[in-house]
Amino acid sequence: MSESFDAVDIIRTKRDRGELSSEEIAWVVDAYTREVVADEQMSALAMAILLNGMNRREIGDWTAAMIASGERMDFSSLSRPTADKHSTGGVGDKITLPLAPLVAACGVAVPQLSGRGLGHTGGTLDKLEAVPGWRASLSNAEILDQLEDVGAVICAAGSGLAPADKRLYSLRDVTGTVEAIPLIASSIMSKKIAEGTGVLVLDVKVGSGAFMKTEPDARELAETMVALGQDAGVHTVALLTDMSTPLGLTAGNGLEVRESVEVLAGGGPQDVVDLTLALAREMLQGAGVEDVDPADALRDGRAMDVWRRMIAAQGGDPDAALPTAAETHQVVADRDGVLTELDALAVGVAAWRLGAGRARKEDPVQAAAGVELHAKPGDRVRAGEPVMTLHTDTPERFERALAALEGGWSVGDTAPGRPDVVIDRIA
Amino acid sequence: MSESFDAVDIIRTKRDRGELSSEEIAWVVDAYTREVVADEQMSALAMAILLNGMNRREIGDWTAAMIASGERMDFSSLSRPTADKHSTGGVGDKITLPLAPLVAACGVAVPQLSGRGLGHTGGTLDKLEAVPGWRASLSNAEILDQLEDVGAVICAAGSGLAPADKRLYSLRDVTGTVEAIPLIASSIMSKKIAEGTGVLVLDVKVGSGAFMKTEPDARELAETMVALGQDAGVHTVALLTDMSTPLGLTAGNGLEVRESVEVLAGGGPQDVVDLTLALAREMLQGAGVEDVDPADALRDGRAMDVWRRMIAAQGGDPDAALPTAAETHQVVADRDGVLTELDALAVGVAAWRLGAGRARKEDPVQAAAGVELHAKPGDRVRAGEPVMTLHTDTPERFERALAALEGGWSVGDTAPGRPDVVIDRIA
Repeated sequence: MSESFDAVDIIRTKRDRGELSSEEIAWVVDAYTREVVADEQMSALAMAILLNGMNRREIGDWTAAMIASGERMDFSSLSRPTADKHSTGGVGDKITLPLAPLVAACGVAVPQLSGRGLGHTGGTLDKLEAVPGWRASLSNAEILDQLEDVGAVICAAGSGLAPADKRLYSLRDVTGTVEAIPLIASSIMSKKIAEGTGVLVLDVKVGSGAFMKTEPDARELAETMVALGQDAGVHTVALLTDMSTPLGLTAGNGLEVRESVEVLAGGGPQDVVDLTLALAREMLQGAGVEDVDPADALRDGRAMDVWRRMIAAQGGDPDAALPTAAETHQVVADRDGVLTELDALAVGVAAWRLGAGRARKEDPVQAAAGVELHAKPGDRVRAGEPVMTLHTDTPERFERALAALEGGWSVGDTAPGRPDVVIDRIA
Repeated sequence: MSESFDAVDIIRTKRDRGELSSEEIAWVVDAYTREVVADEQMSALAMAILLNGMNRREIGDWTAAMIASGERMDFSSLSRPTADKHSTGGVGDKITLPLAPLVAACGVAVPQLSGRGLGHTGGTLDKLEAVPGWRASLSNAEILDQLEDVGAVICAAGSGLAPADKRLYSLRDVTGTVEAIPLIASSIMSKKIAEGTGVLVLDVKVGSGAFMKTEPDARELAETMVALGQDAGVHTVALLTDMSTPLGLTAGNGLEVRESVEVLAGGGPQDVVDLTLALAREMLQGAGVEDVDPADALRDGRAMDVWRRMIAAQGGDPDAALPTAAETHQVVADRDGVLTELDALAVGVAAWRLGAGRARKEDPVQAAAGVELHAKPGDRVRAGEPVMTLHTDTPERFERALAALEGGWSVGDTAPGRPDVVIDRIA
């Protein structure tokens, strides 16, 4: 077919800080999907976008072009409104697990299409696969049925949503162009908009364990995504949340399922409960459900009921014992005092090295591997008592995990201020 | 083999305005040649270099890595010093043709490894191929023999010199990364240093018909190349020269050979003579030949003798008639006055469209096509008399050539100042 634009002209325009037209963006994303624009051209364009940016209109057009590359889901036939949450990823971020059944228990359907982990942040599907029998893959018809019957589904995003994003993400991964906020925002939002949710709450993490290390970067990403969602007619809100220290007391697949079940049983670490409720309230409010307090649904067991039905609907046994690691190793304090620092990145890398995460997409993960924390910043610790326990099936991994933790935690005399989990709300 | 560096780390360093180490640069250029670093990685790196630059040390290392990718020539066995000239390319720039035999006639050997034209600037080899029988390809042994016997050779650069540059240039061409001064400089200088000349004079053109449109860009390129040459032990000087209007009165392969022979016969347009002598003096001075005036060698026929021997040594017939175009078309003035403007780019594009140049590497060129000028800026013209004559074998090309000239020349009442051909000297 005859092409309406020239890839080199488009690259040069962005290279020279120009603005790309809607037609140019639609063409270049489509032509890349058709392999008319080559990988080496798209990577040069991605680098120019990373260094020179895109304006709101361009990012919206880029997102629309990614959506147009694939199918769109439609939840309008459901009897309930839909709301979805997306986290930019953090250490110990198991929030999706209690959140989806909790919000469903309050009357809003939650279609949570999720991914696997790569690097030091875990993936929701990897965590749930620690539950014996549970399966991640559902057809679109199964997703709709489960949303109607149970109200919540957490499953793998099909390859039909925004396939251009999949190809572009793989390219960015090997060309040093992952860190472009316009491309991160359009990658996330193209899938969420194509998924067809009515309400989207974004959990944009900031801190050492997050992709965005600084608050200005996280804020820019959050604002960009909120604008994209609103422009596409999705009710979108973002919370900026702290990721300087792990969420909760566990980082690792099965360990995080256990902690999520504790939260659903009305217990669990305060920061996990707080963030789960904060996100649930945003989802409910966005869906127009104002008169329900999700804290009640945690307390009275309704959220737990949905959890059990959700797990069972996908073949999982909610009563089965979670896998335990073959080996554990305790990290102990060498003095009495207060835990002054516990770095999210250090714990995330340790959990990853213990086998909870993967270095390459095709690697397997260990269901029971990870880091269990016995103290959080501000908690008292005593000389000789454990600060954390490392779990793995492959004890030769302890050494590299311990190296990752080196310098990542410290004990002092004065308790640090405890930062709020939720730093800001962007709507 | 195990790799010592990671391409993504190197891309990210340059993306974030960091400095690449000598080892990183040597590795990435070598790994690209070995196809360990992929095209999409190198294009992202090239874009980062274009936008964030490289310092003098990095550009030197990049150039050295390109040289190390191939063979080096060695002229040290010759009985004479060697000097070479490189032009960044312009419209009507036939200077190599009279210059090489002229300098050889003054006692300095000239190994002029040249290229073909692409786009609106012509290529030296395309021009000489208008001479019946002349061949561009010589072996390294033939080059050495001809330098010893005749003193001058103009031939195709072999594929053995800086092969990494060839691969990288093709990539830059399709990824909008041609215009990176560090990469332009290292591309030119890697081949010239590998070629092994003792003296290099750079003709860096500035103006509408040149690659560098502005004096600051041209000056930066010239200074970068001079530094690279000096760092590599090559006596290197650059002249910044005007390319706002064509050089001489012809643009086109056979037309430019004819004009070059006029210069070698002691005539020819003043600007061509002036620039030829300025470059010849730089080459002779760099080679330590101080007591010879090249103007004498033009006047007394010694340069013409070398020209005839040089053409004959490569199979050409210096007495054969040059090809003439099947069709001509005259562009006439519509009023009496002075030619106030004659834009180099307009004339270059017109010559290209008439068949003198090629749009793609594999296109053929017409030996007789081009533009013949009857006036230069400052010359008087009369209504109804020709300002230029277009030559082509394919008259359907006239229309697009005339369109290129539209607005590219004008007749007024007041003669413009004539700019000096040589704007500055950088050493």
